[in-house]
Amino acid sequence: MTSSDRIKNAFLRSKIMTAEDAASLIQSGNTVGMSGFTGSGYPKALPPALAERIETAHDAGENFKINLWTGASTGPELDGALSKSDAIEYRLPYNSDPVGREKINRGEIDYLDMHLSHVAPMVWEGFFGKLDVAVIEVTGVNEDGSLIPATSVGNNKTWIDCAEKVILEVNSWHDERMLGMHDIYYGTALPPNRVPIPMVSADARIGQPTFRCDPHKVAGVIVTDLPDRNAPFSPIDDTSRTIAAHLMEFLQHEVKMGRLTNRLLPLQSGVGNVANAVLDGLKDTPFHDLKAYTEVLQDGMMDLLDSGQLLTASSTAFSLSPEAAVRFRENLDFYRDKVILRPTEISNHPEVIRRLGCISMNGMIEADIYGNVNSSLVMGSRIMNGIGGSGDFARNSFISIFVSPSVAKGGKISTIVPQASHVDHITQDVQVLVTEQGLADLRGLSPKKRAQTIIKNCAHPDYRPMLEDYFERAKRDAYGLQTPSLPSEALSWHQRFIDTGTMRP
Amino acid sequence: MTSSDRIKNAFLRSKIMTAEDAASLIQSGNTVGMSGFTGSGYPKALPPALAERIETAHDAGENFKINLWTGASTGPELDGALSKSDAIEYRLPYNSDPVGREKINRGEIDYLDMHLSHVAPMVWEGFFGKLDVAVIEVTGVNEDGSLIPATSVGNNKTWIDCAEKVILEVNSWHDERMLGMHDIYYGTALPPNRVPIPMVSADARIGQPTFRCDPHKVAGVIVTDLPDRNAPFSPIDDTSRTIAAHLMEFLQHEVKMGRLTNRLLPLQSGVGNVANAVLDGLKDTPFHDLKAYTEVLQDGMMDLLDSGQLLTASSTAFSLSPEAAVRFRENLDFYRDKVILRPTEISNHPEVIRRLGCISMNGMIEADIYGNVNSSLVMGSRIMNGIGGSGDFARNSFISIFVSPSVAKGGKISTIVPQASHVDHITQDVQVLVTEQGLADLRGLSPKKRAQTIIKNCAHPDYRPMLEDYFERAKRDAYGLQTPSLPSEALSWHQRFIDTGTMRP
Repeated sequence: MTSSDRIKNAFLRSKIMTAEDAASLIQSGNTVGMSGFTGSGYPKALPPALAERIETAHDAGENFKINLWTGASTGPELDGALSKSDAIEYRLPYNSDPVGREKINRGEIDYLDMHLSHVAPMVWEGFFGKLDVAVIEVTGVNEDGSLIPATSVGNNKTWIDCAEKVILEVNSWHDERMLGMHDIYYGTALPPNRVPIPMVSADARIGQPTFRCDPHKVAGVIVTDLPDRNAPFSPIDDTSRTIAAHLMEFLQHEVKMGRLTNRLLPLQSGVGNVANAVLDGLKDTPFHDLKAYTEVLQDGMMDLLDSGQLLTASSTAFSLSPEAAVRFRENLDFYRDKVILRPTEISNHPEVIRRLGCISMNGMIEADIYGNVNSSLVMGSRIMNGIGGSGDFARNSFISIFVSPSVAKGGKISTIVPQASHVDHITQDVQVLVTEQGLADLRGLSPKKRAQTIIKNCAHPDYRPMLEDYFERAKRDAYGLQTPSLPSEALSWHQRFIDTGTMRP
Repeated sequence: MTSSDRIKNAFLRSKIMTAEDAASLIQSGNTVGMSGFTGSGYPKALPPALAERIETAHDAGENFKINLWTGASTGPELDGALSKSDAIEYRLPYNSDPVGREKINRGEIDYLDMHLSHVAPMVWEGFFGKLDVAVIEVTGVNEDGSLIPATSVGNNKTWIDCAEKVILEVNSWHDERMLGMHDIYYGTALPPNRVPIPMVSADARIGQPTFRCDPHKVAGVIVTDLPDRNAPFSPIDDTSRTIAAHLMEFLQHEVKMGRLTNRLLPLQSGVGNVANAVLDGLKDTPFHDLKAYTEVLQDGMMDLLDSGQLLTASSTAFSLSPEAAVRFRENLDFYRDKVILRPTEISNHPEVIRRLGCISMNGMIEADIYGNVNSSLVMGSRIMNGIGGSGDFARNSFISIFVSPSVAKGGKISTIVPQASHVDHITQDVQVLVTEQGLADLRGLSPKKRAQTIIKNCAHPDYRPMLEDYFERAKRDAYGLQTPSLPSEALSWHQRFIDTGTMRP
């Protein structure tokens, strides 16, 4: 099924090789920048071949590991295969692969969990050393050697520009009609030569539809015909639906108060089932002519595009369920001028997010009574995925909203705790908290009023009295009363969960 | 000594009144936006008169409190007097007044500690409600009614624009030759109408030298001749000098590696004695033609301007010792084209900071072994001052550096702890940590390598073995090994200090 027809440039066509041959171009100790952002647009042939090569080396008693950089998470053929083969020494900036996660949490992979907007600039700034090889999945190669991006952009521009050599996977599974959906901005620079990013609306196009690539850097081209692999979404449950309803009521209140209009402001939504439910909740509102400025375009966004409620969606990647991916393809001509895929350094750029005034909605692991949010580390030490782009959005949005059910693990974990076991989003970056119990509008509230509001509106009734008791004693006995806390007890709920399997006493 | 000559506009001259009469224009429950950023440019006559009025009301059994917004900290006549008189119900965005601090920590003042870059936009966005009165100190009033700013800009533009009525203090202590030093940008807007801030170098001027002000909003004008009051700096001690030396060595290494040139990039420096010592340390380096893009211009910056090593300094306020203030005045013509004072929303704007690629250097209360930094809350609950602008700079700088002696309170507190008792700057925003023990370059390091480096390079020898012991046991027993921690012990050092007065066992 694979075909070299997608490679219109003769020189690059001459570089076609097998995945195994391409994998042999990567040496132990190499730093490899691969494409991929969620289960979209990641290379699918080279990584398994490389994993096999590395396993063979390991069997022969050789040490063989690579440093792996990507856009964000990827699919099982990439993070899954390489993690399984103990091929990864060092990983940045995000991982959600279960095997990789397990090895990170056993201390077997060095994992740097980064703000996604920091990645490309810091690589350019030279802080992470040399990038040896880029492995980039593309939809096709034009006659002039420019590359048609696939279903994610991520850090591909930076990898292609910075790597010593480039390996391409030309995947004919991607629809060629995607040409023109991408907006690759070539105006970034190192300081002191940086200039304003000329984006003044979420749907502006400021770049070009393809990647530039010096053909002489291309060391190999692999042709494939392999599907993206994104997880299907769960059906929307009652808890998520209730969270969404609280949030919609809040947004409508903001319109009534004159702080928003029914067109809202550009929406950012994290991934996951709750986020998808929130998008679904928009359906039953008077909000119209919406735009999204976000990092992933998931099923919920596609539904809103279909209905016409969402005019355009800007992101760095698709993150579609298999069914939605089919729908996208069947109606690609409809989506072509409504979807814009950008490099992550632009989709997540604080400059642009603050200018546009995004409404950001992200999931979380836990929040404490003062509204510090933990997005990444279960019980303060075990990585779930990472901070991803949530920090880029939360600090710079018009309104920064975090959503979560009030309990997890069948009630054994309260997601509202006396003190967050790890902090990704400081209180200043968290304006609204929503659980199925209710919504806490924290804007303008001093810490103790935040605590009262969060405990009353967001905590699960099973844990609310415990939180009230802690807060009352802290107000009596704390070292200072700006944010009353009891250090000997602040993390005791987490310790209890570790010791007994539940936060309940 | 006061004089109405500074008020060239006849209509505004007709509004001259006593501080007592002006104070009577403020009612209980009012929200009042006052000028002031550090001990510079804050109103000095109305606040004491208001404090007296409020004390009289309290003596008569009346309830009388105001909500007080400023640029940042102010002087004793403002925060000191109003705090002492129990006049403040609610305070934002920053306080360093000792009386105010004490009342905040007793739970008697509601204090909202904010990112300084968030203040003006959030007020415009309507999140904090109506601003009743602005009280603004200025250097003079032009014939057309425009206002010549004083020694700080802070949020004055926003207070003047948003308040229902404006009270001016025209302070002839300020030198009229300051006209032209300020750069007041009138291009901000609410989304969806925001556009790029057209600043491409630290010394660019993008605004106008004066504030616009509708004369019909001016309810009163007070004439004063009263000095700013900034604290003198301590002589530079050996600890600070050693910290500075480590940092200078690091910056020179960056030049050697080609990641910086000897012109560095725009410098941001926090306030305080260590920050001042760091600036002093620049004197003995080959760095030249430097620029500063910072929020306060302190003595150390002036010395560098004097020597010609620093070409220009952009900030939102002066924060000069009394001696440096005299020097500034004596040589004002020399400084006039080298210093630019901007609104805080511009001096601290993430868009500009990231574009310019600032090198930010800020103090801290403590850092944990993973490099989470606490800048605001002693033992996690007692406010010191606030986060101020450190978050605006740390997340967006080219290199974000935090400095502190490795111990405080004569060795009873280790500033390197197992887990920060409060987090203002997450690990992702902290690239370099420096104590007198050494410097930890954390760029690219995964959490466990960060911990090793911080413990080895930055911790005090008296506490290092305790940190090593904690870290080793955490690596053995933690719930996950991404950032090994022991919740039952993570904050025990803080509890021990609270219980026994020292973190030593």
